[in-house]
Amino acid sequence: MLVQRQVFSMPSFTTQSGKTLKDVRIGYETYGTLNAARDNAILICHYFAGTAHAAGKYEETDPLPGWWDGAIGPGKTFDTDRYFVICSDMLCCIPVFNGKVVTTGPATTNPDTGAPYSIDFPVIRYSDIVGVQKALIDSLGIQKLVATAGPSAGAVQALQWSVQYPDMVPRVISVIGPGLSMGAYGTIMGDLWARSIYTDPDWKGGRYAPKEQPIKGIIETTRQAAVAAMTEFTVMAQLGGLAAAEASKPPEDSILNNYLAVNTVDMMSKMNAGLCDANHFLYLIRAAQLFSIEDQIQHAKAKYLFIPVLTDTISLVSANERAVKAVREAGLRADMAVLNTPGGHLDGLTRLPEMKDTITAFLNAD
Amino acid sequence: MLVQRQVFSMPSFTTQSGKTLKDVRIGYETYGTLNAARDNAILICHYFAGTAHAAGKYEETDPLPGWWDGAIGPGKTFDTDRYFVICSDMLCCIPVFNGKVVTTGPATTNPDTGAPYSIDFPVIRYSDIVGVQKALIDSLGIQKLVATAGPSAGAVQALQWSVQYPDMVPRVISVIGPGLSMGAYGTIMGDLWARSIYTDPDWKGGRYAPKEQPIKGIIETTRQAAVAAMTEFTVMAQLGGLAAAEASKPPEDSILNNYLAVNTVDMMSKMNAGLCDANHFLYLIRAAQLFSIEDQIQHAKAKYLFIPVLTDTISLVSANERAVKAVREAGLRADMAVLNTPGGHLDGLTRLPEMKDTITAFLNAD
Repeated sequence: MLVQRQVFSMPSFTTQSGKTLKDVRIGYETYGTLNAARDNAILICHYFAGTAHAAGKYEETDPLPGWWDGAIGPGKTFDTDRYFVICSDMLCCIPVFNGKVVTTGPATTNPDTGAPYSIDFPVIRYSDIVGVQKALIDSLGIQKLVATAGPSAGAVQALQWSVQYPDMVPRVISVIGPGLSMGAYGTIMGDLWARSIYTDPDWKGGRYAPKEQPIKGIIETTRQAAVAAMTEFTVMAQLGGLAAAEASKPPEDSILNNYLAVNTVDMMSKMNAGLCDANHFLYLIRAAQLFSIEDQIQHAKAKYLFIPVLTDTISLVSANERAVKAVREAGLRADMAVLNTPGGHLDGLTRLPEMKDTITAFLNAD
Repeated sequence: MLVQRQVFSMPSFTTQSGKTLKDVRIGYETYGTLNAARDNAILICHYFAGTAHAAGKYEETDPLPGWWDGAIGPGKTFDTDRYFVICSDMLCCIPVFNGKVVTTGPATTNPDTGAPYSIDFPVIRYSDIVGVQKALIDSLGIQKLVATAGPSAGAVQALQWSVQYPDMVPRVISVIGPGLSMGAYGTIMGDLWARSIYTDPDWKGGRYAPKEQPIKGIIETTRQAAVAAMTEFTVMAQLGGLAAAEASKPPEDSILNNYLAVNTVDMMSKMNAGLCDANHFLYLIRAAQLFSIEDQIQHAKAKYLFIPVLTDTISLVSANERAVKAVREAGLRADMAVLNTPGGHLDGLTRLPEMKDTITAFLNAD
C-alpha cells in the first residue's frame, strides 16, 4: 500500500485557553476510499512520539511501513476495503524533523514575529489537538465517524473526541490508554521524562535556536519513554539480553563496560532524538498531564472498547478496569479485552492484529 | 528503642574477581540480645539506597526511626524479645555522607595511595557484599542464622546468602525482591538510573574529588529510583496529587509552572542526593545487574518466603512466581504471600507489619 502525506491548513485556531494561532497546519494520511455517503471513516490517532504515518509505505523501498500497518489495510483489523482510515499529525508532533511530519508547535515560525514560537507557544490540551483534527474531518465532508481509535496517546485523543464531539463518535477503541485521565502517577512520570530536557543547559529556558537542540536532554527523554515501554521479554528477545556489548570487555570487569542491550537502547535513542524538537516533547507531556475527561464522560454518546496489555507497566490493566467502571456509571456501554502478550506497552503497537475478531465485532455491532 | 552504629573491620578482603582490598570497614546495628547458644540471630539486609539503620533511634529526639522499625522491635514481626537482629551497611553503601554510614567503596581512601579508590575500586558483586557480612557474623560467634531477610536489594542479599553459605541459612524472607536474578529488564532499568551520573560532566569519568560530586546527576538518579517505587496511590495520598505548586501559577498556563507533587519529589531528591557518593550508586547498580543465583539455587538448604507487593512495578509478582517455581524445581520449599496494598514498591518498607502472622509462622516452622 503506497501512501502520501497530505497537508491540512486553517487560517486560525483558538485554543481552549483562548489563544489564537494563525496559519495552523497538520499533516495527514488516508488509507482506503471515502464512500459516497461519507459515512465509512475511522479516525486513527497516533501515539506520543508517533506521526500520521500509521500504515503503508511512501516508496516500495521504504525499510518499514507505518506504525500500525499490521492492523490497517485490505482485509486487516481496520479493513481499508470497507473503511476510509484517516490519521493526522498532532499539534506539537514530536519528530518534526523527520522529513514528513507537518505540525504546528513551538518549533513553528510565528507569522507575527518571523521567529519560532518557542515557549511563547500557548500550553495546549488534548481538546486543542482534537479541535484541529475536527476541522480536518469537517474539511473532508465527514459528519460522523464510524469510530475513533489509537494506542497510548492515540487512545487519549480517541477518548477526548467522544466527549468533545459526541454526535460524531459512536465508538471508541482505546488501546494501551491511561483510562479517563492521565492520573497523578502519570503526571509524575511525565515530569521524569521532561526533566532531562529542562535540566539540559542547551535548552536555554526553551529559547534555543531550532537547529541547536538540547540534544543530550532529548536523548534521555527518548530513552525514558523507550525503556518504560519495554519488558523483560523485549530485552531478552529483541535487544540481545545480557550479552556484553564487546566480548573482550565484560561488564563484570569494569563499570565502564556495558551490555549489548544497553548500547542498543542508546543507539536507538540517539537515532530517534535527532528527529525531534525538545519543546514539542515538553508541550505534549504537559498536554498529557492535563488530560482528564472524568467530569465530561456523561456527555458522550459512544460505546467503548478498552484494550490494555497484561504486561504493560505504563498503562495498567487496573486503570482500564477503572475506566470501564466509570463509563458504565455514566450510563454508557464499555468492554475490556486484555491482550495477553509478554511485550508490555509496545505490544499495543505490534500485537494489535491479534484483537482483530474482537475489534471487528465491536465495529459491526450497533 | 535506642540504638548505635557499630563498626566491623577486617584487615583485608578478596573479591570474587580476585582483587584484595585492605582495611575493609562496614557499619552495623543490632537490636535485641544474642542468647548464650548464639542461635537466635536474624540478619536483615538493607535496600538499594538504604543503610544499616533498620530500626530504633539514635536519640529520643530523632524525627524518624530506622527504615523497618515497624517490623523490628519487641513484639513486632522480627521480635527482639526473642531474636537478635543484625543489619549492616553494604559495601559501597550509597548515603556515605549521612554522618552514620560506615562503608568501603570508591569514596574510601585507598591506603596504598592516600587518595580515594574512585573507579579503580574493583567491580563488586552481591557475593562480595555478603562475603564481608559473613565475616561480621563470624566475628559475633554466630555459626548459624535463624533467617536472612530484607526488602528489594536487601532481598537480593538474603537470597545470595542462602547459596553462598547454605549451612548458615535455613530460612530466607525475600520482600519486594527481583526473584533469583535481576533479569534483563532490571539491567536496562539500572542503566537508566545510572545514566544521569555517567552523562553529568562533573562525573569526570569517575575521578571527581569526593567533595565535588556530580550532584545534578545524583539528583536525577535519586529521582528515578524514587518515582519507580511510587504508584498512583502514593502520589495522590502522600504528595499532594495534582494540585499546582503555586496557586497563582497553574500548570495549564505555562509549561514552566508545575505540580506540587512534582516539586515535592524534586525537593526529596535534592535532599537525599546531598548525602550520596555518585560512584557508590554506579557500583551498586552494576552489582545488581550482575546478580543471578539461578545456577546456584540447587546448593541452597533453605526454605523461602517471597513477599511481593501486588501494585509494585519494579519487583513484579510474576517474577516472584517464577522464583517460587525455580526454587521448588531445585527440590526446596518456597511459598509466596502477596501484600495486597496500593503503594507499590515502597509498601515493602512501610506495610510489612501486615505480614506479621505469615512471617512468624514461617520463622517458627522447621
